[in-house]
Formats: sequence, structure tokens, C-alpha cells
Amino acid sequence: MAYLLLKTRLALELPRINAALEEAEHTLPAPVQPVAHHIFNSGGKRIRPLLLVLVARLLGCQGDNVYRLAVTLEMLHAATLLHDDVIDDAATRRGRPAAHTLFDQTQTILAGDALLACGNALVADFQNTALSRSFSQATSETCAGEILEIAAQRDPELSLEQYLAIISGKTAKLISCACEMGALLAEASAQQVAAAAAFGEHIGIAFQLVDDAIDFAEEGVTGKPSFGDLREGKMTYPLRCYRQNLDSDARAHFDEQFRSAAFSPEACRAIAESVRRLGYDRSTRDFADSYLQQAEDNLMDLPDGKERTLLREMAAFVRERTK
Amino acid sequence: MAYLLLKTRLALELPRINAALEEAEHTLPAPVQPVAHHIFNSGGKRIRPLLLVLVARLLGCQGDNVYRLAVTLEMLHAATLLHDDVIDDAATRRGRPAAHTLFDQTQTILAGDALLACGNALVADFQNTALSRSFSQATSETCAGEILEIAAQRDPELSLEQYLAIISGKTAKLISCACEMGALLAEASAQQVAAAAAFGEHIGIAFQLVDDAIDFAEEGVTGKPSFGDLREGKMTYPLRCYRQNLDSDARAHFDEQFRSAAFSPEACRAIAESVRRLGYDRSTRDFADSYLQQAEDNLMDLPDGKERTLLREMAAFVRERTK
Repeated sequence: MAYLLLKTRLALELPRINAALEEAEHTLPAPVQPVAHHIFNSGGKRIRPLLLVLVARLLGCQGDNVYRLAVTLEMLHAATLLHDDVIDDAATRRGRPAAHTLFDQTQTILAGDALLACGNALVADFQNTALSRSFSQATSETCAGEILEIAAQRDPELSLEQYLAIISGKTAKLISCACEMGALLAEASAQQVAAAAAFGEHIGIAFQLVDDAIDFAEEGVTGKPSFGDLREGKMTYPLRCYRQNLDSDARAHFDEQFRSAAFSPEACRAIAESVRRLGYDRSTRDFADSYLQQAEDNLMDLPDGKERTLLREMAAFVRERTK
Repeated sequence: MAYLLLKTRLALELPRINAALEEAEHTLPAPVQPVAHHIFNSGGKRIRPLLLVLVARLLGCQGDNVYRLAVTLEMLHAATLLHDDVIDDAATRRGRPAAHTLFDQTQTILAGDALLACGNALVADFQNTALSRSFSQATSETCAGEILEIAAQRDPELSLEQYLAIISGKTAKLISCACEMGALLAEASAQQVAAAAAFGEHIGIAFQLVDDAIDFAEEGVTGKPSFGDLREGKMTYPLRCYRQNLDSDARAHFDEQFRSAAFSPEACRAIAESVRRLGYDRSTRDFADSYLQQAEDNLMDLPDGKERTLLREMAAFVRERTK
């Protein structure tokens, strides 16, 4: 059975993470608790809190306050999902109704604000300036990544550099922050803190690349609406490979459609089919692999311990996941 | 000339505050800078940064980093205004077009998030755990106040206690935080920090009470749309006085209309006219006065210095302002 060690540890850690999350939920203003409860129970994998816990334990952190810190990342992540739902006006998230279809827009926006504010206050309670800086920096960068992504929508000529800056901001910074905060809580050396942050950044980018590949999977395989990125005008890595390999007439036609968001459902399906047939989802996973290699190198700067093995398994899981 | 000392000092401080604000604006992601620029230049009085600067100087803080800290409060304040504009779907703010009518909703929500995140990161850069806790606590409480206010909308039986909890949260906590952070930056004693925070809390509540009185002013006198609170179903202090003094039939009719937000423009005008004629705007200012008295008492726990005179003038200004 694959990932046996990781799954066993997950089974131990998840109840503790979920208990801390429930406790954090009760620090929110009562009217927005149902919104937070909904988003916390929408099938999230708790990857960010789990990474924080594993890194902290690997570096010798004892005690239970690690869970209180870990859930601040899930709160920040949930805040971004709630505001995204309002912004994208998406009907579903992970196959379930999006928050703003169950609660009104006002509640959804305010719940996001409250999650961000309370997450931040929980970090401040640790009275550790390095933790506060890491968290607030990650918040800024996550927000900036999202803003850059929206500004880049429907631009078929988005450079690879810009694309990487977007996914680093919107996804990798928060995952990197999880690992960095775990190391900071454990009072690790500056070198270990930097290695943990770099590990997180690299698996974060790989995570988003694989996500972008999954967006072109056959319909019904994932819990998400299919081809969302294509419909929303996001020039992700697999789509970029597809566009680059079109001849110039086809590319001009594609660009025109992409700029005006004019793809029919049939056109989306045909493009996705080509992406898979031509192996661009596979190239995307290969590109992700190059980041996972770097992530594994970063692990070598952390102590040899059972959590290091688990972190390596997590990297493998990022590579192979299909939804 | 009234407030001569205060006006002279304002003329000295405002350019420095505005310069720091402009610098902070440039730390935001480029696509949302125009939104921040708009909200920063929409007629705000810079009361929060000014209070921070005055308290810090009174308590002996030298140097220019006080301005960098002061503007984080204006950033947080601006963030709440932007999200409010989206939530209330208001067409104007302070007589000018609201942000979400000039920029789209997505940009407005994200600009609010970015302002909150960057404000927080600027505070974290001070590497002072007390400052970080004060700021994040104020953010949480401001957010909670807003949520409570919305949950209480159209409830004619809102208690005075609940009303005070709402205005303390949505307005006073941030003003209190401004004074507290000024004292913390000056490394004042715990007693002085507490006195500064209490001073801010008291003038903050008075500020909001006066604001709620101004909402019933004659149309065209203020820069705001008239009777906004009545139309939005906010049971503010002057409206509460009005309702309490209705006979039981009239009150039942009022409650029914209030619950269903059914007041016509003529009905709003008539109620506002009654509020003024019966002196409930004046009672509201008298009630505010009781908080300003307490604020003045709090000042006695701070050193005698020229800024203390200015803080006393600010309290008088809060009492007498008409828009």
C-alpha cells in the first residue's frame, strides 16, 4: 500500500488539527461561524497545517501549541477561498456548493475578513516577531499573486516568468510559510529555517503545476468543474505548451478566442483532449518534477528523522495525485 | 479662531502622514494601487494616524518611523471602507463615487485584502510583539463589530448594550489601537499605554455617536447620503430615542416598517425632522459628551505636554463637528 507511513501519521494528526480548527472557529464572531464551518468542511486536505506540524516535529518541537499555530494557515487559506468564490462567482468548489451560494455575499466577504483577522491574531498571540513577519508576508504575497493572476487573465502571451510569479504568489508562498513557521516554532537554525521555507516553496509550485495539469483531466474524474482555467482565461503551463505548438494561423485563432473568452464547451473539450493526447499534462507533471527534485534537495539540509521520510512521501504524493 | 493650535499642528503633520501613505501605497501590488489611491484621497481626515503621532510624540517618541506605523491604521481603515462599499452597494462615499462604481467588485475586494495584508506586514516589520498584537486584535474587533452590526440590521429592539458593543467594535477599537500603538512605540509604561487605549476607546465611541447624530442632519448639510442609517435599518442612538418616545401604536407601526425596510423617502425625511425637532440629535451629542469626559480623564494619566492640549482639542472637535 502506497504512502502507508504518511497515511498512518495523517490518521494521527488530522483529528488534532481538526480539533484545533474547531476551537479557532469559535473565536470568530458568531454570525460568520457557519460560513467558516462550511469552508473548513469542504474536503480540504489540511496540507498546510500538516506540513507545519511535520516540520516542527522534525526539528524537535514538542507540545501541543503547534496545532494552534498550524490552523492559522488553514484559516488564511480558507479566507482566500471565500473571497475567490465571490470574485469568480463560481457555483461549486471541490464539487460542493460554493459558500456564496449558501450564504449571502456579505457574509462570505466578512467571513473571509474575520478568518484573516483572527488567524493573524492567533499568530500574534505567540509573541514571536519572526512568526508574525512570516505570516503577514505570506498573506501579502498570496494576495498579490491572486491580483497578478486576475490582471493577467485572457492574456495569451503571458510569459513563463510571469506565470511562475503568479503560482509562486497565489499558492507556493503559503505552503512555504507553513514550513517556515514550523521551523521557526521549533527554534531551528537560520539555515534550517531557510531550507524548510525553500522546501515549501518548491513543493508549492509543483502542487500548483499538477493542479493546472489536472484541470485538463477527463470530465468527471476530478471534483472540480472541468477546464475551469481555460474558461477563466488562465494561461497555465499545459495550455501554454498547447498554444506554443500550434501553427501560426491556428495560434492567431486561438489567441482571438482566448482574449474574448469565446470558447464553447465543445471547443474546451476539444482543447483538453488535445492537451492530453499531445502529452502536455504529462510535460506539466515533468516540469513539476524538477521542483520536487529541488524540494528533496532542500530536505537534505534538515535533520534525518521519521518526519523527513514523511515529507519526502508528501512530495511524491504531490507528483502523483489525480484530483 | 477655534482649534488654532490643532490646525497648525495638522498642517505640519498631514504632509508627512500623506507622504508615508503614498510610500505605503507603492508597496501594494500594482493592479490595486489605483483603488488604494482613490480611497486614500476621498476626503479622509487622517484622524487615526494623527492620534498615533500625537500620542507617540507626547510620550517622547522621536524619529520618523512613527509615520510609517501611523499609516498602517489608515490602510486598515481604508480596507474596511472598500469592503463596506461592496457590501452596502453604496453609490457614493463622502459625496464621491464609491470605489466599486469606479473599479470592479473584484478589484475592490482584492484591494481591501491587499491593504489589510500590507498594513499588517508593515506593522510586523517593527518586530515588536505588542504592536503586532494590538494591530491584529483591532483588526479582529473591527471586523467583528461590522459583522454584529449587519446581523443586528432591521432589529428595532436592539439593546443599548448591543448598540454600544457594535460601535465600540466597528469604530472605537481602531481609534483605541491608534492611541495604544502610539504609546507602545514610545515605550511608555503599562499604565500610560492603558490610559492611551482608554482615551482612544472613549473618543472613538463619542465619534461614532456624533456620526450617528449627523446622519439625521438636514439633507445637503453633510457629504453623505441623508438618513443612510435609517434606510439601512441601523437602530442608532438618535433613532432609539425617537422610537422609545413613540406611543405604543405608533411604535408598532414603526417597528413593522423598520423590520421590512419599507420607509419611503418622505417617511425618512419626516422621521429625521422629528429627531431634530425633539432634540434627539442633541441628546446623542450629550451622550457622546459623557464619553468625552471620560476621555479627558484618561488624558490626566498621560504627561502634561503640548500634544496633550491638542488631544483635548481633538476631543472638543469630535463633539462639535457637523459633517
